[in-house]
Amino acid sequence: MAAVRLGPRQRPPGHPDVLSPVFWLHDRVVLLDQRRLPHEEVWTGYDDADDIVRAIREMEVRGAPAIGCAGAFAVALMARLGLPSVELRRRMRAIVEARPTAANLAVAVHRMANALTMERDPVVEAQLIWKEDLAACREIGNRGAALLPAEGTILTHCNAGGLATAGYGTALGIVRAAVAAGKRISVLCDETRPWLQGARLTTWELAQDGIPVEVIIDGAAAHFLSRGEIAAVVVGADRIARNGDVANKIGTVGLAAAASTFGVPFYVAAPQTTVDRSTENGAEIPIELRDVEEVASIEGRRVLPDGVGARNPVFDVTPARLVTAVVTDTGVWTAPYAF
Amino acid sequence: MAAVRLGPRQRPPGHPDVLSPVFWLHDRVVLLDQRRLPHEEVWTGYDDADDIVRAIREMEVRGAPAIGCAGAFAVALMARLGLPSVELRRRMRAIVEARPTAANLAVAVHRMANALTMERDPVVEAQLIWKEDLAACREIGNRGAALLPAEGTILTHCNAGGLATAGYGTALGIVRAAVAAGKRISVLCDETRPWLQGARLTTWELAQDGIPVEVIIDGAAAHFLSRGEIAAVVVGADRIARNGDVANKIGTVGLAAAASTFGVPFYVAAPQTTVDRSTENGAEIPIELRDVEEVASIEGRRVLPDGVGARNPVFDVTPARLVTAVVTDTGVWTAPYAF
Repeated sequence: MAAVRLGPRQRPPGHPDVLSPVFWLHDRVVLLDQRRLPHEEVWTGYDDADDIVRAIREMEVRGAPAIGCAGAFAVALMARLGLPSVELRRRMRAIVEARPTAANLAVAVHRMANALTMERDPVVEAQLIWKEDLAACREIGNRGAALLPAEGTILTHCNAGGLATAGYGTALGIVRAAVAAGKRISVLCDETRPWLQGARLTTWELAQDGIPVEVIIDGAAAHFLSRGEIAAVVVGADRIARNGDVANKIGTVGLAAAASTFGVPFYVAAPQTTVDRSTENGAEIPIELRDVEEVASIEGRRVLPDGVGARNPVFDVTPARLVTAVVTDTGVWTAPYAF
Repeated sequence: MAAVRLGPRQRPPGHPDVLSPVFWLHDRVVLLDQRRLPHEEVWTGYDDADDIVRAIREMEVRGAPAIGCAGAFAVALMARLGLPSVELRRRMRAIVEARPTAANLAVAVHRMANALTMERDPVVEAQLIWKEDLAACREIGNRGAALLPAEGTILTHCNAGGLATAGYGTALGIVRAAVAAGKRISVLCDETRPWLQGARLTTWELAQDGIPVEVIIDGAAAHFLSRGEIAAVVVGADRIARNGDVANKIGTVGLAAAASTFGVPFYVAAPQTTVDRSTENGAEIPIELRDVEEVASIEGRRVLPDGVGARNPVFDVTPARLVTAVVTDTGVWTAPYAF
């Protein structure tokens, strides 16, 4: 059993028009390595669940819905091994713990655990999770596109695109659907330090679709919001609490505060699977802290003086009061939230 | 006439305890190269005014008060050349235009022009500007320290420290004075993309004084503000309009919006020379746009996909309504402003 490096531009079977960063192909899980974009497009086929867990932890695959799909496929790979059920459950917990903040990973793995209990085919179940995520993104796109003006610039953060989902994207799904509906939308994208998902990934996938995109440093977002140059902010989510508080990539709550201060609509786009009804509010959401070297070093070179430390929370929580609406595949939700 | 590379740890004559990034020494202007900190401490003595203009433009020296001093010293160097007055005025305009946003550069050069008209010694006048800036920073420090709690974390942005002034600093002058007064203050500092003045410079100078400092990405500031972990935000300013609107490093208005949203005091620290009474409000302040490569490439490596552009405004304007108080050497000012 080994990882196989695949050729360029892999597409999921049956969906030749969809760019998907994670899908099932010939008994393997195919991942597009998001650490190496936009410079290199590296596709790998994995048949070992441990490789998928590592890929989730190291952000070879990232984005809450995408890691949900990856987690489901990892369980499908694992189910082949004929492990004792205690061991299987231990390994499923390890998948969930690979990234603590996203709701979708836990939801997908729990659903796979139920499927195994019910003796449903785990590969079919994981593929169903993938297909439902893709369909949810298209539905989010259509619902959200109606909220955008006929013309204008949308500000987004990180990558809530096809690369963060089974395909099509959540926030970028809304942009895609608006453009498909004939709206003249351009995108301004935060670079999103420290990982630069905006500069590297959102640009890469929008440029392929011919959607105009420009990059700004994260600190410049409020400037453009303050000048009336932004029609709406649209971001994704990693977990949405029952009260409407939203955990998303670090930097989101600052955008929401600036949007609120300057009267710009702030929309959150996510599949219904991102809404965690068991989380009452944002204070209950665990915020992942990653290695401070992600901040202290840039492109392999240490920036900080010796002896100076950093802090690296990678998500934040936006209070529901700063959110104009949450767009899911089942509706456009506003306060008081009753998802 | 040539630039001379000097030995380590240069200090201004008569002020052996002051770290100053720009001062007059033996008929030369000494600059500490802020592009190379914290890795290398390179001090250069210049005797050609054109070198100083280049150094201002290329940010070898930066920070509104510091470039004011550098501009004054450049005029002092120029005055030796015995140029026709038309040519001298043309060159003085070129100094002012090297960086358009900071008020202090224009103020200092205009003051030097007046000194020349009045036949005052230009070297003495430039040194007086430097001394007054250092004294203003100490006064700002004392006035601002009184606003800080006995214990707590201060959030700052960019570098409004000794390195941005004749010495001691504006925002960091307040931190220094508070620590000197026995307050237990630690600093959380935005890295401040794209130039990383926070990660490279603020850390470097605070670490030398033994003041605790940690770095966060710019996008993380609102997270810490939202969690009640920040006692106050303290930033510098490049120009303050008559109505209290504040131009400062890009990212400032976002901090102010987040501070306002989460009820954290937001203080601006600057010498009175930064207040430009001829600017009615922030809309009149020109915002410098720098080369987009500063955003598109990091540590010499291009981050963006081919064909994707960026925008790079390097200052923003914080509306007076988001500012708790402006601390200058003459007072702690609040709305309605009557500087």
